[in-house]
Amino acid sequence: MKFTSETSSNGVIERTFILDEITGVLWSPATGSGGGPLLLSGHSGGMHKKAPGLVAGALHSVTADGFTVAAIDAPGHGDRPRNQQDQRWVDAIHRARSTGEPLAPIVVEHNMSVAERAVPEWQATLDALQALPEIGADAQIGYGGMTLGVATGLLLAAADPRIAALSIGAVFVNDALLEVARQITVPVEYRIPWDDEEIDRASGFALFDAFASTEKSLHAHPGRYFEAPEHERDSSARFFARHLGRTAGAASD
Amino acid sequence: MKFTSETSSNGVIERTFILDEITGVLWSPATGSGGGPLLLSGHSGGMHKKAPGLVAGALHSVTADGFTVAAIDAPGHGDRPRNQQDQRWVDAIHRARSTGEPLAPIVVEHNMSVAERAVPEWQATLDALQALPEIGADAQIGYGGMTLGVATGLLLAAADPRIAALSIGAVFVNDALLEVARQITVPVEYRIPWDDEEIDRASGFALFDAFASTEKSLHAHPGRYFEAPEHERDSSARFFARHLGRTAGAASD
Repeated sequence: MKFTSETSSNGVIERTFILDEITGVLWSPATGSGGGPLLLSGHSGGMHKKAPGLVAGALHSVTADGFTVAAIDAPGHGDRPRNQQDQRWVDAIHRARSTGEPLAPIVVEHNMSVAERAVPEWQATLDALQALPEIGADAQIGYGGMTLGVATGLLLAAADPRIAALSIGAVFVNDALLEVARQITVPVEYRIPWDDEEIDRASGFALFDAFASTEKSLHAHPGRYFEAPEHERDSSARFFARHLGRTAGAASD
Repeated sequence: MKFTSETSSNGVIERTFILDEITGVLWSPATGSGGGPLLLSGHSGGMHKKAPGLVAGALHSVTADGFTVAAIDAPGHGDRPRNQQDQRWVDAIHRARSTGEPLAPIVVEHNMSVAERAVPEWQATLDALQALPEIGADAQIGYGGMTLGVATGLLLAAADPRIAALSIGAVFVNDALLEVARQITVPVEYRIPWDDEEIDRASGFALFDAFASTEKSLHAHPGRYFEAPEHERDSSARFFARHLGRTAGAASD
């Protein structure tokens, strides 16, 4: 892992990094000796490691809760080249949007393929992050994400016992993702849209049902999947604080 | 309104009161000059103003958030005599439980009847509470409740514009309650059980759909309706703090 830039603003240090082909970013508190939880943040399909909503959430987690947050570009996203297969999926999604065909079957297949490739990359990133003295091997680790980032997080949590809690948004669901969810036993907070023509309620209910976790909460909000209310960010922070052994607001003590 | 007892413990003053036939209790912070939000707390069917869960929530709201909390016994509950009509409903509910007949139709009819009688009682209580100097006419007012307490709260909020926010648990739903919900426009946080054979998911979804509020959240938790996780109390406190103009945790500032 090689850090390629470092800036500091409003109490947050932002460092971009490269690890093999992986391009990533790490946000950490400017003060404090480390030891806080580490959150992995998975961006939506078509977005990247510095998507506006992701950055806003990360800065909130660092400044309000003293967490450290990492994000990486998914394969074919952000600073990374898109391969021919991904390009065909992207073209098919654009075609479906313009003709009004159902998006879900194409998006979910694409997401699952990208997510499968992203899992070993997150694991390599996690190995490298845990080798940093300010994070360490004992860091408590949570994962948050939206759409593609949810598919990635579920595959990652099913594969890697280091993921101790999942706070996720809406995702296109298929049988393969339900099968993955049945392997997940860590606490889950799952937000779904109540009125979204692309991501329907029933698929959200099915995914919530599938989680084997004894601690799981479903939060539904009016509107579409990208319209989760601001206070859900606070709920997510408190969820991670509860499960990753740090009180929300600890950074300001 | 006549106060009939006053005790103080762990920073909370508890005063019981009588207003005509209404028996109630008021919990307020031992320190501070008042002016914080007022929460009205509606107990479940068969319970009373000092039901254990209600008291625990009230003490948390007073000590952690600086709120004042009031609860009254519903007609035929707690310290209040049960009339013959209510007795017939209670007998019918016991019979249905022992024979395995569906409870919902009986419970919801009973709840609606009790709730209709409780609304003017809550309004009279609110008038009297707002006449207290430590509460006042400008107090921001929220309502929380479970089962019978939900039916009461929805009828009250539809009838009285002083109710500015509703944080509610599970409730048996019928068409009359859905009609009431369609008149409600204040923010609502609504918790439903995911696996309850008596209060089914579909009725919960229908009630959530019915609220005319632009700000509404549905929270689902595994298990039965009385098994809402502890952290939902915290969520409820933050919900009220957001909507009643006071930051959660302000009491400790």
